[in-house]
Amino acid sequence: MSSVSFIGLGGMARAIAARAIAGGNSVELVGRDAAKAKDLAAEFGGGATVGTFGTVPAGDIVVLAVPYTSAVAVVTQYGDALAGKVIIDISNTFDADATGLITPDGTSGAQEIAKAAPASAHVVKAFNTVFGHVLAKNRPLDVLFAGDDARAKAEASTFIESLGLRPLDVGGLQMARWLEGVGPLLMGLARHGAGTFDIALGVNVLG
Amino acid sequence: MSSVSFIGLGGMARAIAARAIAGGNSVELVGRDAAKAKDLAAEFGGGATVGTFGTVPAGDIVVLAVPYTSAVAVVTQYGDALAGKVIIDISNTFDADATGLITPDGTSGAQEIAKAAPASAHVVKAFNTVFGHVLAKNRPLDVLFAGDDARAKAEASTFIESLGLRPLDVGGLQMARWLEGVGPLLMGLARHGAGTFDIALGVNVLG
Repeated sequence: MSSVSFIGLGGMARAIAARAIAGGNSVELVGRDAAKAKDLAAEFGGGATVGTFGTVPAGDIVVLAVPYTSAVAVVTQYGDALAGKVIIDISNTFDADATGLITPDGTSGAQEIAKAAPASAHVVKAFNTVFGHVLAKNRPLDVLFAGDDARAKAEASTFIESLGLRPLDVGGLQMARWLEGVGPLLMGLARHGAGTFDIALGVNVLG
Repeated sequence: MSSVSFIGLGGMARAIAARAIAGGNSVELVGRDAAKAKDLAAEFGGGATVGTFGTVPAGDIVVLAVPYTSAVAVVTQYGDALAGKVIIDISNTFDADATGLITPDGTSGAQEIAKAAPASAHVVKAFNTVFGHVLAKNRPLDVLFAGDDARAKAEASTFIESLGLRPLDVGGLQMARWLEGVGPLLMGLARHGAGTFDIALGVNVLG
């Protein structure tokens, strides 16, 4: 069981938090709008607590579930309140057309977030390759993740497994660039090859 | 049935050509080393013809199966000999560590190849997200592809289906950047999350 705080209350936070509660984790919900956090906690039937935005989160794991365009600012505002935390960055960074990324070459959203976080915090990129509405279907899915700190990755991996999902390590945090590149690919697949957004990327290990 | 020429005689060419012959396509093998092309054709038991490097390929589809580091030079050398062809670029463009790409931001191997090709040729990116040794296992797999020309994409798609593979369109040729980014991801998965190179990326369409 992990202790997990969600910063941000959108569709992805809701989908992951619901699975987190079902998986027996301790869940805290945090948003700028405290009333919204309370409403969501109530929806979850008491399975989650509510925290205060900008203060030290209760969870050892912090799921940063705000749009990438505000993620660095939120982490900067939190500052030392995130010291020692495992920060799971779930953001997608694709542009308005969903064909390119808004972060420049040689970096990624996850790496930019890591730069803004306290040195004692460790960023793990995960979940951005899964659509929120697909996560909400409660199926087993593959979750690709990347990070530089082995212990933080192990904690993230345990958490992902507790959600009924298969964690698949792709390497160091610089690999977040290519995980974020899966965002446009999934959008393109949905619009062209698959013809539906009800799709999930998977990895088959061949016998 | 498609008429397909392979330029390059490495493991990927061998794997795709074997499936192409099994799928009833007309196959031509072309390499700088004509003897090697003849040997491979003989291995295929007469199922393939042998062409001359640098001259007009017999196939309407040309699978460019040389390493990316020589691909632009080969296309430039061919010049107008590739006029009107559907060029399938299968190259991976990752660096020696397989963590980054050797092409700069805002472009891709496929787009660089398209720049070097005659205006009447159309480049389709495909197959780079599948390991050659996995293709050789003769299983049904997903092949993600991208391109700008609808007719060229339709021809590539028909060809991919003839190999017992599922073609999945991800959009325009600029999406090749993110298909090429799957290269490092697969390498990272093999080394970290999956622990084996016997893996295949797949897309599940959820009911």
